[in-house]
Amino acid sequence: MEVDHRIRVSDGDGETTAGQGGVVGVFFARCWLRLRSVLVGLWCWVAGFARKVGRIAREDPRRVAHSLKVGLALTLVSVFYYVTPLFKGFGVSTLWAVLTVVVVMEYTVGGTLSKGLNRAFATLVAGFIAVGAHQVANRCGAQGEPILLAIFVFLLASAATFSRFIPEIKARYDYGVTIFILTFSLVAVSSYRVEELIQLAHQRFSTIVIGVLTCLCTTIFVFPVWAGEDLHKLTAGNLDKLAQFLQGLESECFGEKAAGENLEGKAFLQVYKSVLNSKASEDSLCNFAKWEPGHGKFGFRHPWSQYQKLGALCRQCASSMEALASYVITLQKSQYPEANPELTLKVRTACGEMSSHSAKALKELSTAIRTMIIPSPANITMSAAIKAAKDLRNELSEEAALLQVMHVAVTATLLSDLVTTIVKIAETADNLARLGHFKNPEKTQKDVAINIPSR
Amino acid sequence: MEVDHRIRVSDGDGETTAGQGGVVGVFFARCWLRLRSVLVGLWCWVAGFARKVGRIAREDPRRVAHSLKVGLALTLVSVFYYVTPLFKGFGVSTLWAVLTVVVVMEYTVGGTLSKGLNRAFATLVAGFIAVGAHQVANRCGAQGEPILLAIFVFLLASAATFSRFIPEIKARYDYGVTIFILTFSLVAVSSYRVEELIQLAHQRFSTIVIGVLTCLCTTIFVFPVWAGEDLHKLTAGNLDKLAQFLQGLESECFGEKAAGENLEGKAFLQVYKSVLNSKASEDSLCNFAKWEPGHGKFGFRHPWSQYQKLGALCRQCASSMEALASYVITLQKSQYPEANPELTLKVRTACGEMSSHSAKALKELSTAIRTMIIPSPANITMSAAIKAAKDLRNELSEEAALLQVMHVAVTATLLSDLVTTIVKIAETADNLARLGHFKNPEKTQKDVAINIPSR
Repeated sequence: MEVDHRIRVSDGDGETTAGQGGVVGVFFARCWLRLRSVLVGLWCWVAGFARKVGRIAREDPRRVAHSLKVGLALTLVSVFYYVTPLFKGFGVSTLWAVLTVVVVMEYTVGGTLSKGLNRAFATLVAGFIAVGAHQVANRCGAQGEPILLAIFVFLLASAATFSRFIPEIKARYDYGVTIFILTFSLVAVSSYRVEELIQLAHQRFSTIVIGVLTCLCTTIFVFPVWAGEDLHKLTAGNLDKLAQFLQGLESECFGEKAAGENLEGKAFLQVYKSVLNSKASEDSLCNFAKWEPGHGKFGFRHPWSQYQKLGALCRQCASSMEALASYVITLQKSQYPEANPELTLKVRTACGEMSSHSAKALKELSTAIRTMIIPSPANITMSAAIKAAKDLRNELSEEAALLQVMHVAVTATLLSDLVTTIVKIAETADNLARLGHFKNPEKTQKDVAINIPSR
Repeated sequence: MEVDHRIRVSDGDGETTAGQGGVVGVFFARCWLRLRSVLVGLWCWVAGFARKVGRIAREDPRRVAHSLKVGLALTLVSVFYYVTPLFKGFGVSTLWAVLTVVVVMEYTVGGTLSKGLNRAFATLVAGFIAVGAHQVANRCGAQGEPILLAIFVFLLASAATFSRFIPEIKARYDYGVTIFILTFSLVAVSSYRVEELIQLAHQRFSTIVIGVLTCLCTTIFVFPVWAGEDLHKLTAGNLDKLAQFLQGLESECFGEKAAGENLEGKAFLQVYKSVLNSKASEDSLCNFAKWEPGHGKFGFRHPWSQYQKLGALCRQCASSMEALASYVITLQKSQYPEANPELTLKVRTACGEMSSHSAKALKELSTAIRTMIIPSPANITMSAAIKAAKDLRNELSEEAALLQVMHVAVTATLLSDLVTTIVKIAETADNLARLGHFKNPEKTQKDVAINIPSR
């Protein structure tokens, strides 16, 4: 809007001078102003982009370190090409070291190790098999050789590609299988024209090993980023977030200072959300951590899969918290007359105790994990929370009628929550139908109505 | 265990004959029996593996088709190498076509398109920049050239690597940036020794384009797997699963035929779980779908992001269902005397109506999405569920005392659910501490106790 405005104003200016000056002056003035507005727009975009880049760098300075490490590894490996004696040893194959560095270098040590070892071993195995295939094909004469080679490539590539659908292979050796197909095809295909196949294979393997070693040295010795350490911190952080939610609940809803104000938009009611979406990064970190050697406080066979179990439970907690959060908000909104103040007070006190003790237990666990000290003998804190829950149940069970109604009522409340979400789903589906040009049901409605199973 | 048993039995057999025979006979007998047990074990493993492979293939036959397609594409592209006239045109660069096919070929059309276009454009751009860098470095003499080239490689590789941390670039151009670094380094580094740089760059680019085109033709024209279609089906399937849960709830808990049996382990109480974990595959399918051209019922600018919105809501539903499922199980277990049968019946009826109408609405939506027909005018079915929820609320609000207690009680119940999960978390953390050799807190306990914030 600002830009448009400028142009219009300046057009007016231009014409007043143009009355005396000339058409050329107006033209240049217009061009200049238009150019200036484009430049201003470009400048705003660049400034915004720079701010964003700065924010990303400040959020985690290890990202900058990683970028410089990639540059360093590439420069180191390219030295092989520039220095004549080294070049003579390996020839054009040196380029494979550059290629390896670019493809293998990952953010974490575990990632680099997993890709590097996969690459090196897959190249070795595929190279041997390919040389064998070449020997077999070679005996079939000039006519048969390319046909036989093509058949070998087809069969091995198909089989190897299929093996990537097996979950165990997919999880740990996906990259290795790709490199296996790659190396086998390259060696088998080029064996048709290259004379000194063994020498070529040897050169290529050596340069790949050089590339992998360069990557490993740079990732391990220059500001290493350990996937295991990140996973460890992520887990402790998730426990902290859950504790934060419960602390907030205690102080804002059940505590003595609870103001009864509107809770919608409170930060503590949002804090569990990132826990819900942590599965993907947790899985990949765990997968990489398994490749890492012992480092710092972590041994080689550190029980990384326990972190995945903890993560699954944390997400289950976060799920319950989602239900609780939406419920707490509606609870605070609807103020009923205090009909049974005694019981309400009892329940509130019990809720407060449950949340504060649970929060404390979670905090303790996260501290125990962070400092790697065995947590205090199981659940002194939790037993208080369990006792509060049990007491409340006993208290209520004296009023059996109430308890029973309550149980049914909880289900009813959760279900009406679901109904609200499903209404939103219906709205989004309507949106999708509109934007995606779904067919109008005029003619087809009858058929569809019959097709809906009404179990 | 079976194998051990056999060996022991056979050892006994061996010794009875050895009394008359000789030491050599015993030795061979043992060897044979040990070998046989190893072979039997191997055979069992192979048979198990074959069954698994068969299951994976039967689950989705498109996987077999994909594997054969990769083999086909590789064989097609290797023809370039075998046929002499074609080979003379491109020389050794033909190998880049093979490399491209292996790396670019993905399961879905969108994946292949995204990788192929990224690769082609990144190669083109990086090639131009690298040739420019070579021209600049060339003017600095034999001494300066490698140094200047190394500086260029370091700067560009660092900058490009950092750009991969920007979420927008990471999401759509991650592979392109890798290829950019790769091509730039390869061309810049090899420019130091190769004479006819432009010709080399041209050959390499052409072969990469040939590789990409081969991939695209095979993925698009031979049994294509469209990411968009998979996303579409996944969304409809998720809606179906949610409906299944609600149907099960209606018939097993609130319906007339509800048997009141133990619900733990019922299939319908598990069905929402896969919905909870669908985010990762949904995101990647959506990302690939955006690259795909129009196909079947889907236009080029089909609103794919709406599917992500639907997915987020579905996961929210599944979250509530998790809370509901654990609640329904405990509810069924604890049988209280029917203290207020009239009210209980009312609530049960309302719950039954809410679930059955919601399930019906979800089924309708999934059918509408699957057939791409606009869903029936918004929420005729849902309005029945909403009405049931409202009626129940009105009914209960006449008994204000009950309603208020109920609200507080729901919170208390959800919280005691949380307490149960947190106890499990504490157990897992204990496991982790034991397996991970955490330190004993004897000396350090005091410090830690002080460090725990007790807000």
